[in-house]
Amino acid sequence: MDLTRQTNSEKEMQGFSRRDFAKLIIGGSALSIYTLNQLNAAVYQSITSLNSKYIRDESPDGVYWEALSKHFLFQDGLIMMNNGTVGPMPKPVFNTLIKTFKIQATNPFDFYNYFPQKKEDVRTKLARFINASPEEVVFTRNTTEGMNFAANGLDLKEGDEVLISSLEHPGGIHPWKLKEKRFGIVVKEVPLGVPPKSVDEIVDAFKKAITPKTKVISISHTVYITGLIAPIKELSKLAHKNGILLVADSAHGLGMLKLDMKELGADFFASSPYKWLGAPAGIGLFYVKKEVQEKLWPTIATTGWDTYKSAEKYETLGQRADPLTFALGEAIDFQNVIGRDRIERRVKALATYLKKELSKIRGLRLHTSDDLYLSGGLTAFSIKGIEPEKIVNYLREKYNIVIRTIGREKDNTEGVRISTHIFVSFKHIDMVIEGIKHLVKHRD
Amino acid sequence: MDLTRQTNSEKEMQGFSRRDFAKLIIGGSALSIYTLNQLNAAVYQSITSLNSKYIRDESPDGVYWEALSKHFLFQDGLIMMNNGTVGPMPKPVFNTLIKTFKIQATNPFDFYNYFPQKKEDVRTKLARFINASPEEVVFTRNTTEGMNFAANGLDLKEGDEVLISSLEHPGGIHPWKLKEKRFGIVVKEVPLGVPPKSVDEIVDAFKKAITPKTKVISISHTVYITGLIAPIKELSKLAHKNGILLVADSAHGLGMLKLDMKELGADFFASSPYKWLGAPAGIGLFYVKKEVQEKLWPTIATTGWDTYKSAEKYETLGQRADPLTFALGEAIDFQNVIGRDRIERRVKALATYLKKELSKIRGLRLHTSDDLYLSGGLTAFSIKGIEPEKIVNYLREKYNIVIRTIGREKDNTEGVRISTHIFVSFKHIDMVIEGIKHLVKHRD
Repeated sequence: MDLTRQTNSEKEMQGFSRRDFAKLIIGGSALSIYTLNQLNAAVYQSITSLNSKYIRDESPDGVYWEALSKHFLFQDGLIMMNNGTVGPMPKPVFNTLIKTFKIQATNPFDFYNYFPQKKEDVRTKLARFINASPEEVVFTRNTTEGMNFAANGLDLKEGDEVLISSLEHPGGIHPWKLKEKRFGIVVKEVPLGVPPKSVDEIVDAFKKAITPKTKVISISHTVYITGLIAPIKELSKLAHKNGILLVADSAHGLGMLKLDMKELGADFFASSPYKWLGAPAGIGLFYVKKEVQEKLWPTIATTGWDTYKSAEKYETLGQRADPLTFALGEAIDFQNVIGRDRIERRVKALATYLKKELSKIRGLRLHTSDDLYLSGGLTAFSIKGIEPEKIVNYLREKYNIVIRTIGREKDNTEGVRISTHIFVSFKHIDMVIEGIKHLVKHRD
Repeated sequence: MDLTRQTNSEKEMQGFSRRDFAKLIIGGSALSIYTLNQLNAAVYQSITSLNSKYIRDESPDGVYWEALSKHFLFQDGLIMMNNGTVGPMPKPVFNTLIKTFKIQATNPFDFYNYFPQKKEDVRTKLARFINASPEEVVFTRNTTEGMNFAANGLDLKEGDEVLISSLEHPGGIHPWKLKEKRFGIVVKEVPLGVPPKSVDEIVDAFKKAITPKTKVISISHTVYITGLIAPIKELSKLAHKNGILLVADSAHGLGMLKLDMKELGADFFASSPYKWLGAPAGIGLFYVKKEVQEKLWPTIATTGWDTYKSAEKYETLGQRADPLTFALGEAIDFQNVIGRDRIERRVKALATYLKKELSKIRGLRLHTSDDLYLSGGLTAFSIKGIEPEKIVNYLREKYNIVIRTIGREKDNTEGVRISTHIFVSFKHIDMVIEGIKHLVKHRD
C-alpha cells in the first residue's frame, strides 16, 4: 500500500497554487484543480480503509471488489469485459488527466518548467512497478511503437532470421515484415497450440526453429488472440543460451500481471498501460535491458539521441501530450494502493471461474489454457454453429456487456474474447454464461 | 467563415446521445457534454457576429481582437508571447478535448466504433486548410516525428548528401545525423544570414552547395531561432530542377501563415499545430506529396503499412490519444471562423510594429528580417550588454509577459524571441518596449 501519492499530490498542489493555478476553473464550472485533488484523495482514502477492513477477504464479489468497481469511470450500466482493447480509467486517473491538461493549457510555459522532474518521478515509479531500473524505461505511444523501435534499432543484415510465433499481433508482425521487405531479413513463424499443452511444448517449438542465422525471437507475452501468457522466462533462457535477443510484446501485461523484468529476462519488452493499468490511450512502456542498449539505435532522433547514456536516448521524441504521463503515474498509484498481487489473483480467479463454467457448455471450445501459468485475464473461445458476432451482439443487447470477436480462420482461432478485470464480478460472469446458454439452446 | 462545424457538432451530439453520452457528467460536476457543446456554439456565434460587424476593421486593438482574445484559455493576467514553444488553446478546443476524453473514458468500445470516420473528417478538413489532398496528410505526434519519418523512410546510400541550413532546429538536424552515423550519408550545412538580405541570397547559398551527390534539401520553413520564413517555393524549384527532394520543417507554420502546399511545392512538410493553431501538444502534421510517396518507406508499421495506397501508410502507428485529433479539428474550425487571411495579416501587423519599435532602441540587433515575405510572427533580437535571461525575467516579473531566450553563441544568434499571435495586442507590445527601454536605460 503506497500512500506517498497523497503527499506528492499535496506538494504538487502547493507548487501550482503559488502561481494561482489552484484557482483556475474548468470550462466555467466549479471543477477546480483543488476539487479534483480532493476527489482523488477521497478515492485513495476509501481504498485504504477497505484494505485494512478486508485484508483477508479475497472472496467472490465481497464488499471489497464491489466498492472498488465504483472508482472506475463507466457509462451508466455498461459492463466492460473488453478492456483488452482499451480499458476504462479509474476516476483519479481521469481527474489527473484533465487537471494536467488544464494546467498545461492555461500556462504552457510554466508547465514545461515543471514537467521534466515530474516525468522522471513517473519513470521511477513505473520502473519500480515492473522491477526494472529507471534507466531501462522508455515512454512510448503504445506497444506497437515499442515493437517497431526494437525492429528498427537492431542492426540486422540480409539473411538474418527473426522467429515470431504464429499468433502474433499485427503490431508485433509488421515491424519485422517491413524490415524483411526493405532490408532482406527473414521472418519465420513458429506454430503455437491453441491452447498449447505445456511450457515445454512452446519452448521446444522455438528450440527446433533456431538456426545459426537466428538473431531474434519476437513473441507475445500476452497473446491477444488466444489469451495465452507465453513463458517468457523460459524462452529468454533459450534465446540467451543461443546468443539470441528476445523481444516481448506484452500489450496486456501491465496492470494484469505482477511483472518482474529481472525474472522474465526479456531484452526488450513493450506494453500498453491503457488496457489493464487504467492509463489513457496514447502512452506506452518500452523496456530496454541495460545490457543491450548499446545494440539498439534510436528510431526517432532529436537532441540527446547520441548523448544520453540510458534508455532516454530512445525517448527523444519531441513535444508530446505530457498529461498522459501524469495520468500514467496516477494509474500506477491506483493499482499500488490496491496491491498488485491482489489484482493478479482477482483477475485469475475471475478467469478461472469463467473457464470452468464455459467448459460445461456443449460444443464450446476454449482457446485459452486453464493452466494459471499459461493464462491470465483474457479468455477466448468459440462455439460450434454460433457466429462470434452473434455472441457479442446478444450480450450487449441483453446485458449491456461489452466483449469482442477475435481470431482468424487460418489457424482456427475465430471466436470471442472476454477480459475479466477487477471491476468485473462473478455475477457478471454468470450473466455471460446465462446468455451463452440461451444462444446454445436456440442454436438451430 | 465556416459554419459547418456547428452542424457537425450537432450531428455528433445526436450520435452520442443515442447512447446516453450526453447525460454523462465530468468528475461529479454539472459539466456535461451537452454543456460543453453549448459553450462552443456560443463562442462561434460570438465570432461570427463580430465578423459581420467588423468586416473592415483590421485596426490595431479594435473591439474585434480584444473580444477574440477572450476565447483563449489563459491563466489570469498572463500575457503569452511565447506560443512559439506551445500555444494556449482556444476554449472550444479545450472543451472538445476533455469532452472527447470523457466519451472515450466511459465507453472506449463505442468510441472506437465511432472514431475512424471522425478522424477522416479532420484529415479532410486539415487537407483543405493547407490546400493538399487528404491522401497526403498524416497525423503524427509533432514536427520532429515528421522529420524523422522523412529521414528514415528515404533510401539514401553511403555518401549521399543532405543539405541543411545552419539554423535548423534539433528536430530537423538529428534525424539526418543519426542516418549519417548509422548509414554513412553526408550532412552538409549551408550558412544562412541573420537575417538574410534577400530570397536570392538564400537560394544562391543552396545552389552553390549542390553537388551531383545531393539527394535532399532539408530546411526550416519557419526558423525557430531567428524567425525567418524561408522561401520554400523558390527552394523547391531549385531542388526539383536538380532532381533533389525538399523536406520542410514548418513547426510554426500551421496557424501562423496561410499555407498552400501546391504553391510551396515541398515534397515533405512537417508541422506542430499546437504552437500557432491552438491544438493540444502531441498531435502533428506530416504532409507527403502524392508523387513522392513511392519513395518513402513507413518508419512505424502495423496493419496497412504495405497495403494502403495513400499517406495513411505512414500512420499505422497503433492506438493513440485520439481526443487530440478531435481537438485539432476544433482548432481548425476556430481559425476558419476567424479567417486565415485575417489571422496572417494580424500576426504580421503585430510583428511589424514590434520590429519597428525595437529598431529604435540603441544597441539592439534584430535577428529577424523586416521583409514580410521572409518573416512572420516570430521576432528574435539581442541587445548589446544585456543578458537575454535578464530580458525574459524582467518582462515576466514586471508585466507577466512570457517570452523566451533563444540562440547559440556559435552563429551569433543568442537573444530572445517573441511570438505575436492574434491574442496579443499593440498595448502588450508597448509594454515589451517599455520594459526593454527600462533595461537599456539601466544597462550599466
